[in-house]
Amino acid sequence: MSGLIKQFSDILGKEYVLTQDQDKAPYLTDWRKRYVGKALAVLLPKTTIEVANIVKLCAANHVSIVPQGGHTGFCGGATPDETGQQVILNLKRMNHIREIDSANQTITLEAGCILQTVQEKAAAQDFLFPLSLGAEGSCMIGGNLATNAGGTNVLRYGNTRDLCLGLEVVTAQGEVWNGMKGLRKDNTGYDLRDLFIGSEGTLGIITAAVMKLYPLPISQWTTLVASQDIASTIALLNLFQKRATSLLTGFEMMTQESLALNEKHFPQMANPLKGNPPFTILIELSDHESEEHVRKLLETILEEAFTAELISDAVIASNLSQANAFWHMREHITLAQAEEGANLKHDITIPLSSLDSFIQETDALMRKHYPGVRIINFGHLGDGNLHYNIAPPLGSDPKAFNLANEKAIHELVYSQVERCQGSISAEHGVGQLKLEGLRAHKGDVAHDLMKTLKRALDPQNILNPHKVVSI
Amino acid sequence: MSGLIKQFSDILGKEYVLTQDQDKAPYLTDWRKRYVGKALAVLLPKTTIEVANIVKLCAANHVSIVPQGGHTGFCGGATPDETGQQVILNLKRMNHIREIDSANQTITLEAGCILQTVQEKAAAQDFLFPLSLGAEGSCMIGGNLATNAGGTNVLRYGNTRDLCLGLEVVTAQGEVWNGMKGLRKDNTGYDLRDLFIGSEGTLGIITAAVMKLYPLPISQWTTLVASQDIASTIALLNLFQKRATSLLTGFEMMTQESLALNEKHFPQMANPLKGNPPFTILIELSDHESEEHVRKLLETILEEAFTAELISDAVIASNLSQANAFWHMREHITLAQAEEGANLKHDITIPLSSLDSFIQETDALMRKHYPGVRIINFGHLGDGNLHYNIAPPLGSDPKAFNLANEKAIHELVYSQVERCQGSISAEHGVGQLKLEGLRAHKGDVAHDLMKTLKRALDPQNILNPHKVVSI
Repeated sequence: MSGLIKQFSDILGKEYVLTQDQDKAPYLTDWRKRYVGKALAVLLPKTTIEVANIVKLCAANHVSIVPQGGHTGFCGGATPDETGQQVILNLKRMNHIREIDSANQTITLEAGCILQTVQEKAAAQDFLFPLSLGAEGSCMIGGNLATNAGGTNVLRYGNTRDLCLGLEVVTAQGEVWNGMKGLRKDNTGYDLRDLFIGSEGTLGIITAAVMKLYPLPISQWTTLVASQDIASTIALLNLFQKRATSLLTGFEMMTQESLALNEKHFPQMANPLKGNPPFTILIELSDHESEEHVRKLLETILEEAFTAELISDAVIASNLSQANAFWHMREHITLAQAEEGANLKHDITIPLSSLDSFIQETDALMRKHYPGVRIINFGHLGDGNLHYNIAPPLGSDPKAFNLANEKAIHELVYSQVERCQGSISAEHGVGQLKLEGLRAHKGDVAHDLMKTLKRALDPQNILNPHKVVSI
Repeated sequence: MSGLIKQFSDILGKEYVLTQDQDKAPYLTDWRKRYVGKALAVLLPKTTIEVANIVKLCAANHVSIVPQGGHTGFCGGATPDETGQQVILNLKRMNHIREIDSANQTITLEAGCILQTVQEKAAAQDFLFPLSLGAEGSCMIGGNLATNAGGTNVLRYGNTRDLCLGLEVVTAQGEVWNGMKGLRKDNTGYDLRDLFIGSEGTLGIITAAVMKLYPLPISQWTTLVASQDIASTIALLNLFQKRATSLLTGFEMMTQESLALNEKHFPQMANPLKGNPPFTILIELSDHESEEHVRKLLETILEEAFTAELISDAVIASNLSQANAFWHMREHITLAQAEEGANLKHDITIPLSSLDSFIQETDALMRKHYPGVRIINFGHLGDGNLHYNIAPPLGSDPKAFNLANEKAIHELVYSQVERCQGSISAEHGVGQLKLEGLRAHKGDVAHDLMKTLKRALDPQNILNPHKVVSI
């Protein structure tokens, strides 16, 4: 095998082929540290041609490749297996922003660019790059594309997929597909771009992209409102969609139980709404006209919501720091859960018309079959996306509880998702974590189509094998 | 072969298997009548299961299938070949709107629904179904999806692809993929939906879909402005994008020469702008707040545009009928061209930052190499989408001119498109018309990927063979 390492070094330069345990260690696990793998080597290419040459070399030697960006994923998609025979291809050195095209409102960049850097570069030229999520300080655009990342701006700007106009991809044969066009319309044949986006590096390796930019809003207003039930919350969302339309950029839901956990671990994050209502909704409007215009609009809609008895209380952030505090409250739920210990996560989508039924029925089943569990339910409600997480009962041994009940609890949630025509993976992807869940819940025809595509594009099964789909 | 006809009849009922010449004739050509084919039979299924059974029967007998909706396409994608061995599968009887889900803002419908009917049904429930194009009175949603149709609302709402959340598809093996979920987020594996959308029936037959709905705007304002050059026009677009953002729902360009042709054939369509300027721009804003709000915004932006000398004249439609007249002016260019006789059409996209260079250079080359040709250039400029059409010189024999120069003129335009990193098919698709052009201009890696996908999903090559890509 040292012959192969030598050949990698010939392509990349010796210092970019990591083979020592201490050098490889940081690349062998994801953020949640749920999976730890082994690797023959960690490869750090700088150019697309280097990536292509590595893939060709791996293909000739039947070595499989795990593409990797910031490895902040939740599903083990960027972690190698335990054989020690795979190579990790980390694209962090490919971090060049090639161009910002103002007239075309596009940014052309390499896969290893860190999301926050992209946001900042865009903002410096008066543009918004709308993708925004918890890991933005370390996740990379290649990984965002590979997993079709979601986040807090999907309601207005769509998922990563919707922000992408063009891609450069290295195929499983080591060919380079140059699809780097910044076009809003292009009907020249099959949609290769969207096939690679969200395929988690199993069909090709994304090395660069052309992404959409938007004008920066000039004013944002954030409010917290109290809702007594999900039916009112959906009616409230529909009201905002109708009145504020595309000014509505955030609609996040937090249950009483989620915020109680928050307050336990971060007392400074107390809910400013009186009495911690059953559902606390964070609403954000963004405007390109004026501060006065958006504030007035927000107040008008809230008045209407009070009159229709959709909400019982509201607090409008009086300044940017209070608005940030509202968002931190929402974002800290994940951290509060981590403080509290192991829990069972479900990243799901439910059609808005079934959300009430889903929550009522799943909550009831959960409390009946697992008395004492805490349902930490929160998420991007505007997209129908819930993080429906289950924490073990207080006083129980979390590890033992999870070990005993993990499979059955996932199955309970996923069968409710299926009943409601929802998705068992909204924005976190599949990776290793949901490989089995996907097989069980996707339906045979869809799963067979996926296997057919994988076999066609990667017949040797060298690109991130046993992630998303197994052939 | 009469055995096969009998089997079709067993599946569909005798009256839905057309085999007589006079019955088949209306299905054998497209709107432009550029292609006329033959068919063994025209099949008119009513259900997805019937479609699946027909595909299975065809697969077993190696009979190829041309799926068809309203057959209003411009590229011959829905016209059979001349062998008389193909069957046409027309989905017009599958025209049931299954559901409008208000809370989820989705409409669930079958492929044979006529676009205008869908718009009307949505409007009746206070929703906008944004897809809008010239053929909307007869084109069908299945065809819109199969070709990823564009139209006049793409600037704000995207192409048909962007409006679709879920699909039902019959595969080349006669399996039914039920992907009918109305979800804004779903990362469960490969993006099968977008692979079928825009594949023009060559990878599967779309039988039903879940599409997005939007709140109906309450006020729209339309204006015509005079621009002296493309650079100013792009600056004007960027100004509107920044100030009006998503209120901007139309930004159409018409050259002097296009409108002169219009006026020749439809004198009542005279340009209300003084002196027929080099570029007439139609701008539409749509608002959900109030008539006053949007009118004021429009006036403010126009003032700014005058001050910056981006425009030299403007006429705001004073009522709905004048607004409609502005749009008719734009839409009648296609009809004026038809009146004038045969012409060479190019449906292309150019990145906005290269549009000025494209038009200047291509116009100059065209006038140099083909003195006297008329360049009928107009289109959805906000999307970078031009209908860059070439009419023969006045006084020449159009047929003879086109026959002699068609190939070279297409090649001149397409090589300029390639220079500018544009697309040779913006919104009309590929069909038969651009099969060769696609092969020549797509690039080998992309074209090989397309062939690999076609072979994988339709190894018998029975779904609309020799459209989009030949294997």
